[in-house]
Amino acid sequence: MSLEITFLGTGAAFPSPARGASALVLRREGQCWLFDCGEGTQTQLMRSHLRAGRITKIFITHLHGDHIFGLPGLLCTLSLQSSPDSSSKAPLDIFGPLGLRSFLQRSLELSHSQLLFPYAVHELVPTPDQCPPQEFRDFSGWDSGDGSPGRVLCLAPGEDSYLLLEDEQVEVRAFRLFHRVPSFGFVLEEKLRPGRLNVQKLKDLGVQPGPLYGKLKSGTEIVLESGAVISPQDVLEPPVPGRKVCVLGDCSAPLGDTALRLCRGADLLVHEATLGDRDSPGDTDTRDSDTGDTRDNDVTQLRRQAEAVLDGQQVILAEDFMTIEIPLKKGQLTTEIPLKK
Amino acid sequence: MSLEITFLGTGAAFPSPARGASALVLRREGQCWLFDCGEGTQTQLMRSHLRAGRITKIFITHLHGDHIFGLPGLLCTLSLQSSPDSSSKAPLDIFGPLGLRSFLQRSLELSHSQLLFPYAVHELVPTPDQCPPQEFRDFSGWDSGDGSPGRVLCLAPGEDSYLLLEDEQVEVRAFRLFHRVPSFGFVLEEKLRPGRLNVQKLKDLGVQPGPLYGKLKSGTEIVLESGAVISPQDVLEPPVPGRKVCVLGDCSAPLGDTALRLCRGADLLVHEATLGDRDSPGDTDTRDSDTGDTRDNDVTQLRRQAEAVLDGQQVILAEDFMTIEIPLKKGQLTTEIPLKK
Ligand SMILES: [Zn+2]
Ligand SMILES: [Zn+2]
Ligand SMILES: [Zn+2]
Ligand SMILES: [Zn+2]
Repeated sequence: MSLEITFLGTGAAFPSPARGASALVLRREGQCWLFDCGEGTQTQLMRSHLRAGRITKIFITHLHGDHIFGLPGLLCTLSLQSSPDSSSKAPLDIFGPLGLRSFLQRSLELSHSQLLFPYAVHELVPTPDQCPPQEFRDFSGWDSGDGSPGRVLCLAPGEDSYLLLEDEQVEVRAFRLFHRVPSFGFVLEEKLRPGRLNVQKLKDLGVQPGPLYGKLKSGTEIVLESGAVISPQDVLEPPVPGRKVCVLGDCSAPLGDTALRLCRGADLLVHEATLGDRDSPGDTDTRDSDTGDTRDNDVTQLRRQAEAVLDGQQVILAEDFMTIEIPLKKGQLTTEIPLKK
Repeated sequence: MSLEITFLGTGAAFPSPARGASALVLRREGQCWLFDCGEGTQTQLMRSHLRAGRITKIFITHLHGDHIFGLPGLLCTLSLQSSPDSSSKAPLDIFGPLGLRSFLQRSLELSHSQLLFPYAVHELVPTPDQCPPQEFRDFSGWDSGDGSPGRVLCLAPGEDSYLLLEDEQVEVRAFRLFHRVPSFGFVLEEKLRPGRLNVQKLKDLGVQPGPLYGKLKSGTEIVLESGAVISPQDVLEPPVPGRKVCVLGDCSAPLGDTALRLCRGADLLVHEATLGDRDSPGDTDTRDSDTGDTRDNDVTQLRRQAEAVLDGQQVILAEDFMTIEIPLKKGQLTTEIPLKK
């Protein structure tokens, strides 16, 4: 099952012809999940190999304009291009900080736009420690309450992350970052999958293909006519660990050790880095850091800084339209690589 | 004095890599006036020979997303790139339909954006007959009243246009168009300028360069020492007619005969035309029609249709980054060209 990330915008603060405003697409099983949607994202999508109509979920890290100003336009264009039966489809899920619903509603209402497909905005309520006190705004009263679907997700006492999605294959969580405005990171983690049956071994043991294969695969031991007992672990390959992809919004630091815990062992972690900051891009404890978001072309120093901190992990400087594939893992758990203190 | 128009976006309904969303710049005396600001306009500006920092006025024809979704981002970028003394500058004037102020305020507030330069939103109150009744929205209560400057311009009884600007050189008016949502056209008209002094003639008459030249130029007759009387019309070239540029928002028709009257004799008139409409692009009585805003490349039929209606007037199909210069007129009034009925 393929899993890949394509960067659509790797610019900082505003879009330019060389680097679009922030946006990337994670593609998995033909579905596209969009992370951030700066101005011009719909045009960048057209320039890429991706199809905007495949977007089923959208995640917004924070409400800075270079991460959201492309969202109303993208939704309008998706609506214009939607098929007549779109209204009966599953809603497009949009996750992002509190205030996102109001931004979308106002933009769509004032531009007289009516989307022909259903959508739901799920808002993450940030905590005041996610930004400098004078920058914190409470948008909780801004929801104009039009009854459109969507949840409001608060951080429960004792919890340190927001569970956004969970099904048999995958779990998606958000965690808090510190930025000039409240920002979030997202972790997509595939669940452990049972290993394949070792068909050669089964043949050697005299087990014929049929219902017994299914029993073994589901974890039940079987008894052959000969009286021999075969337990699943005898004929199953080791379970296949899922892959983990982390996409962090702009930040100067994560809050607490949640990000570190959730992102440990990530196969790919996307982290912004901007030239001209006093902070080094390695200040947050992350690995496999993909640094993009730069002001000019002298970005190789960012890689050197990141590599120095990340202790041998591969660092890639992202560019618009770069695609990174995350291959399926072999049937064994990766060994933990110790983090540099 | 140069006067030119540059198309930044000539697409229909949404931006694409081939045609940006609606936007054009009129440049006059080093000042840039932006008409419409679809998503991606700031990037198109960077790709052009124009400088966004030169924009002193913005005119929005109507609130459809492909004409306004680039505005919050453009303002934020102008703010990021502004000089420290920007707060003491004259405000950036933004003209557009009622609702524009609320759109901007909400977008800027929810994205935590604070512009470092002053701006004023001047809202045109449309009349209900500018769109189908079911599409009309009353945004008059939506102004969140933050006390930011800007006027609300209603159509006074007996008036049929909105006077937006007037100084010694130029007058700008808006007039009403019929579209799916209320839409406006804008006319910029330069005032008649006194002709130049005919220096050769003055020499022949024995008038020496000096204060007498100024008197003649200001329209006063003079008496020479010889007793000869020279009146201004003897030595002044004919007055120079101003140029007239019209930019129309999306429309299927103008309201009443105001557009026709205001646009008569235009040196350049920008008019949208989109393939696939039942309406021919010449349905509105306009001349020198620049047709852009098309869905595919087969646009030459639009030119043929327009030419057939416009009776020999030059028709240009606009493309992104096309610049059209409007030369100064010679010192004589143009003869009226009769409109085809
Ligand atoms: Zn950013
Ligand atoms: Zn940011
Ligand atoms: Zn349009
Ligand atoms: Zn329109």
